[in-house]
Amino acid sequence: AVASPAVAQSAPEVRWRCTSSFPKSLDTIFGASEVFAKAVSDMTDGKFQIQVFAAGEIVPGLQALDAVQNNTVEMCHSASYYYVGKDPTFALGTAIPFGLNSRMMNAWFYAAGGLDLMNEFYKKYNVLMLPGGNTGTQMGGWFRKEIKSVGDLSGLKMRIAGIAGQILSKLGVVPQQIAGGDIYPALEKGTIDAAEWVGPYDDEKLGFAKVAQYYYYPGWWEGCAALNLFINQDKWNGLPKPYQAAVHAASALMNTEMQASYDAKNPGAIKRLVASGAQLKAFPQDVMEACYKTANEYYDEISGKNPDFKKIYDVVKAFRNDEYLWWQVAEYTYDNFMIRARARG
Amino acid sequence: AVASPAVAQSAPEVRWRCTSSFPKSLDTIFGASEVFAKAVSDMTDGKFQIQVFAAGEIVPGLQALDAVQNNTVEMCHSASYYYVGKDPTFALGTAIPFGLNSRMMNAWFYAAGGLDLMNEFYKKYNVLMLPGGNTGTQMGGWFRKEIKSVGDLSGLKMRIAGIAGQILSKLGVVPQQIAGGDIYPALEKGTIDAAEWVGPYDDEKLGFAKVAQYYYYPGWWEGCAALNLFINQDKWNGLPKPYQAAVHAASALMNTEMQASYDAKNPGAIKRLVASGAQLKAFPQDVMEACYKTANEYYDEISGKNPDFKKIYDVVKAFRNDEYLWWQVAEYTYDNFMIRARARG
Repeated sequence: AVASPAVAQSAPEVRWRCTSSFPKSLDTIFGASEVFAKAVSDMTDGKFQIQVFAAGEIVPGLQALDAVQNNTVEMCHSASYYYVGKDPTFALGTAIPFGLNSRMMNAWFYAAGGLDLMNEFYKKYNVLMLPGGNTGTQMGGWFRKEIKSVGDLSGLKMRIAGIAGQILSKLGVVPQQIAGGDIYPALEKGTIDAAEWVGPYDDEKLGFAKVAQYYYYPGWWEGCAALNLFINQDKWNGLPKPYQAAVHAASALMNTEMQASYDAKNPGAIKRLVASGAQLKAFPQDVMEACYKTANEYYDEISGKNPDFKKIYDVVKAFRNDEYLWWQVAEYTYDNFMIRARARG
Repeated sequence: AVASPAVAQSAPEVRWRCTSSFPKSLDTIFGASEVFAKAVSDMTDGKFQIQVFAAGEIVPGLQALDAVQNNTVEMCHSASYYYVGKDPTFALGTAIPFGLNSRMMNAWFYAAGGLDLMNEFYKKYNVLMLPGGNTGTQMGGWFRKEIKSVGDLSGLKMRIAGIAGQILSKLGVVPQQIAGGDIYPALEKGTIDAAEWVGPYDDEKLGFAKVAQYYYYPGWWEGCAALNLFINQDKWNGLPKPYQAAVHAASALMNTEMQASYDAKNPGAIKRLVASGAQLKAFPQDVMEACYKTANEYYDEISGKNPDFKKIYDVVKAFRNDEYLWWQVAEYTYDNFMIRARARG
């Protein structure tokens, strides 16, 4: 017998399944997982194949993490904050209200220990996390009536989930959990008064402008939303090193491409939405400040009883404050000038 | 004889040299090229090795592109705008004054045809370009005296190169070409009145605050500065497909890591610079507006005689205007709130 060549041993055939928490209709998000899988296949000459399944094809969208933890599938494309019911610390891997913007999130993940810190936490769930795209700052959603001050939030039935829902509930909002496809009829019938979804490109497809004309910004609960790849820890450990490196780089590629894709698609969508009657409104200052204050109180409360959350939140908070100290100098001043120059024509 | 296994044929040993336009002392930029080379090696199980050389080790920093075009080396890490002497169209691959910010540049490159459009141009030079990092919005540089209005630019001797130098010269500045290491003594002796370099992290190391206390922002000539990988077209075509895919993904990884690294390092540096006496100043509004007007006139002038520039510039300009239309809604409003919230403490 002849020994197999070393190269063949380091490049075994591997087949993985990646379950997505998202439907194919969210084509920018779902498309990024396909970019990822194709890149891994291309880099390994087709030897490492990852098949991506939309939410519900193998497991329901919100059970993606559990399916990876239990090794039903090797990996998933999801959003860490979907799992705040297990532990609020999960929110820090995607978005917390008044958290980092998209570029700061990358800075934290890649250059300030954020990935390591989150992965220390995710070990408890037997998964490894890699960045899986970003939406950028989201919109604040669609409202059937104008919000003139914080008092107008009282009794407002709004489709909003997670920590943002809990914060808003302290200000009188009645948060509702409604799947994407059911939002439009609920808004149309007036079963709910408001709903948040993503941003112009995704929102346009669901047609909200026809049933709720006020389109608020910014989505302060998602200064960015980092999507995530979660990989079963044992499966990761069993991968040849070159395949691990391919997954790491493919994650960076999909992470960039998703944000780029949203950034390229949103301007056309917001123009069409406004042309079709959507009224863009900034949240009133007193609403923003009440939400900010309530969010900080909420973080203090969670920090008091959850050491994992406290440990990571304290780091994120200090990092965010440092980032904005610098951001306001060059980046923000540049954007400010360019925005005003464009408006002058 | 037994046929070689297919896997061995698709994974040949390849050795490339990458010459950098940058010295090792610019550790964030140089470090990104090492991140790139390591990722390619890791993904190919060490079969595709790219050795990175600092500026001057093989060829001078500003001749990196020529060395790739002539196949002296297979690839380089450089900045497209260093080659505006050949054709001003090169500027569009890195930065033009009042151009895209960092995230918009990624959006243009990856999701709006920018890479394809630039590569159509680069074909004339027998090279392929891939993204190679970004600095984000740079600072406007160090000035020995305060700039109170556009009149103060008259006769100002400033170390600034490229299109920005040409624009400023129309407003009375006398642009000077001085290598990084020679800036400090020139500022100290008063041979020059001002100098721009990069941003807080890199500027701090050169100690400018000691000899020119006014630190202006923003560097409107570099709303972002995209660094670039240039690869000899024939060498690229000769690579196995999996190696091309590895290079593509490693480029996305280094592109992300460089911006992340700058974003993580700059806040500490700007705090230390201010503590050591640097006075942060925004360029006066009339200076910004005069430079913007002059830049637009310059672009019209170049567009009138250079079809390649006109073709790509028209696309960039339209894309930038669309991007800022959207940016001002969610991103900018969010950043604005966060900056003010931080300042209130």
